[in-house]
Amino acid sequence: MRICFVGDSMVNGTGDPAYLGWVGRVLHDERKRRAELTGYNLGIRRAQSDQIRARWQAEVGCRLPAEFEGRVVFSFGANDAVQQIAPAETLDHTEAILSEARARWPVLMIGVVPLPDEEVRTRIRTLDKAFASLCDRLDVPYLSVFDGLMATPTWLDEARAGDGAHPGAGGYGRMAELVLGSDIWRRWMAR
Amino acid sequence: MRICFVGDSMVNGTGDPAYLGWVGRVLHDERKRRAELTGYNLGIRRAQSDQIRARWQAEVGCRLPAEFEGRVVFSFGANDAVQQIAPAETLDHTEAILSEARARWPVLMIGVVPLPDEEVRTRIRTLDKAFASLCDRLDVPYLSVFDGLMATPTWLDEARAGDGAHPGAGGYGRMAELVLGSDIWRRWMAR
Repeated sequence: MRICFVGDSMVNGTGDPAYLGWVGRVLHDERKRRAELTGYNLGIRRAQSDQIRARWQAEVGCRLPAEFEGRVVFSFGANDAVQQIAPAETLDHTEAILSEARARWPVLMIGVVPLPDEEVRTRIRTLDKAFASLCDRLDVPYLSVFDGLMATPTWLDEARAGDGAHPGAGGYGRMAELVLGSDIWRRWMAR
Repeated sequence: MRICFVGDSMVNGTGDPAYLGWVGRVLHDERKRRAELTGYNLGIRRAQSDQIRARWQAEVGCRLPAEFEGRVVFSFGANDAVQQIAPAETLDHTEAILSEARARWPVLMIGVVPLPDEEVRTRIRTLDKAFASLCDRLDVPYLSVFDGLMATPTWLDEARAGDGAHPGAGGYGRMAELVLGSDIWRRWMAR
């Protein structure tokens, strides 16, 4: 199985001194269950939904040839909230991305992550709920991680101690645990 | 600094249970010297030089915005040797890639890696020498790793024990050591 992870700096794992991020940690753990698992990390710093819409098909298309089982995980939204993109616009781009992707591959969306800035975080919370509704309508599984990352201080504390936005190994490790421990991920991987 | 690593499955780190590959290990070590270092892994399984020529500009362009220091590392060639692409054709694609890349970013090419199959490996050795000449002519630093990876049995032994092509953590660790320990890498990073 080959999985493309498409998104922003949080997908890239920016700030993680181990250069794994949550994506690398999830792949590492999943390998216990399937040795043949290739991951493609397509997270780009500052990526907003319109930019992801413009690039994801070309980048995923050449990584998931039809003869191998391919899947796509999307995770973005924080940069839209930072840049105060109207939620309707973010949702429009996201609907286009998910609709096109799910026609070709099994798709999972993983929720937008909290940032230390309170105003931005309020917009992120709104986006998280809107993404959940959108994904429900499109029949795409949505794994919200916002509450899980806010339940312990690790994510925001590391972000504040770092560059003000990105956590370190502890925060990314916590996010990987949230993904790996969720029924939504388990069911999606077992499909 | 943001570095794009463009190439094939060996760049992706396919087969490494740690999901770091040599790229992740090099980034992890470099972080000791510069905390602000982002890596983008653009290695794709089975990628040949013509496919890399077709995609690298779009993928690197959106990852290296002009306002941040960006660099590009290329490493490929084994799949051209497997598919018996005429060396002149591989070199033509490689010259086009390197010429265009070096006009915009500092560029380093890291040599093609050995495979267990002896006939393929002979073609890889030829390509390695041809890449060295080409890079010399184009004034692009070239770091050959072929002899270094053949000097100990780890790389080929792990490849044989794995899927027949890709090493495991030991081989990728050895390749990272070769890169990090080379004057070519050190000088390029200090530029």
